[in-house]
Amino acid sequence: MDISDIQEKLRNFSRERDWDQYHSPKNLAMALAAEAGELLEIYQWLTEQESNNPDDKIRKQTSEELADILIYIIKIADKLNIDLVDSVNNKIAINEKKYPKEKAKGSAKKYTEL
Amino acid sequence: MDISDIQEKLRNFSRERDWDQYHSPKNLAMALAAEAGELLEIYQWLTEQESNNPDDKIRKQTSEELADILIYIIKIADKLNIDLVDSVNNKIAINEKKYPKEKAKGSAKKYTEL
Amino acid sequence: MDISDIQEKLRNFSRERDWDQYHSPKNLAMALAAEAGELLEIYQWLTEQESNNPDDKIRKQTSEELADILIYIIKIADKLNIDLVDSVNNKIAINEKKYPKEKAKGSAKKYTEL
Amino acid sequence: MDISDIQEKLRNFSRERDWDQYHSPKNLAMALAAEAGELLEIYQWLTEQESNNPDDKIRKQTSEELADILIYIIKIADKLNIDLVDSVNNKIAINEKKYPKEKAKGSAKKYTEL
Repeated sequence: MDISDIQEKLRNFSRERDWDQYHSPKNLAMALAAEAGELLEIYQWLTEQESNNPDDKIRKQTSEELADILIYIIKIADKLNIDLVDSVNNKIAINEKKYPKEKAKGSAKKYTEL
Repeated sequence: MDISDIQEKLRNFSRERDWDQYHSPKNLAMALAAEAGELLEIYQWLTEQESNNPDDKIRKQTSEELADILIYIIKIADKLNIDLVDSVNNKIAINEKKYPKEKAKGSAKKYTEL
Repeated sequence: MDISDIQEKLRNFSRERDWDQYHSPKNLAMALAAEAGELLEIYQWLTEQESNNPDDKIRKQTSEELADILIYIIKIADKLNIDLVDSVNNKIAINEKKYPKEKAKGSAKKYTEL
Repeated sequence: MDISDIQEKLRNFSRERDWDQYHSPKNLAMALAAEAGELLEIYQWLTEQESNNPDDKIRKQTSEELADILIYIIKIADKLNIDLVDSVNNKIAINEKKYPKEKAKGSAKKYTEL
């Protein structure tokens, strides 16, 4: 995924519609969370088992909501000059420390309670 | 961003901790939305102006929350065999049609109300 | 529940802390959704079965998050002069029509798909 | 607001539709958060100023979303035998201690940072 390429596309999209006035990080965070709500709506009445075996409709809806959320992530990162690859790699490294294999094995506990 | 590389890392991370039992798409959607809530918490009392000029602390917190959300996006996509690059490109194309430049210019209206 | 009594308490609370400057409906909506994220966090790795049989800790955490969310509902209603009893009764009446017993029986489908 | 009266209504509503099978606290928490996402959607592109002066349409939409969220709060409380009046009063008392007037005055900082 070429993130700076997508950022360029999204910048053009907003510029052509004069939408930058709406795109403060605060507003983008709200829009992202609203899309996360739509993702929840897909799964709220499904069992976990059903969610593990989604039909084409659910896969398509999920694909669209993930795209919406990802677009907002990419836009917020653009506004704040955040390097998402660095962010993700740092976060995985942090999680490795927070959740050492031996302690975290098979447990859904938060790191503060391990 | 090499998504399949990150997916491989995350698969190992879960396997080593025996966490796949918790990672149904339903549960991952919940975890993603919970992280979106943490993103909101950063910005909830800031003005838009303040969010446009974030200090280092806010940038760092945002970077971490974006990473958390992105990791869950990448995991859900892995579980459902969704190609995120395709999803994002499709979504941008859909948005181009939903929000034609002339009609959407300067407007924050939803496409259903344009 | 005496809502206007709670609203009075909450108005005093904000006034004494000079917090009204932060309490636009926009910001209160964000804070409410951030609390909804904390509610999700309690349940994200639990099975439905486990959530049906919560221990004291989960009940206490849920009680606190529901209170947080309810407080923001009551504050937003206060700001916008919304009568919550009317709102809830209206909504139940709307749902009665959207989901007629015969059609909705045993189905988790959205009303648009029944 | 007579909460036990509403709970009775909602119990009948679910029973008549055979919906209790879907209403685990986990699922209800998801549905609540999805509705919180719809509340965000109303306000995401509005300025704070605009949200302080909502027109009739925004007030009506807000009233409906608050009702949706409140209905899920009331249902979760019913499932877990949580007394919402107690919860709210306890929470206000906790907040009084977390945010002492002198320290919190005019500040949007979290209690952990005061």
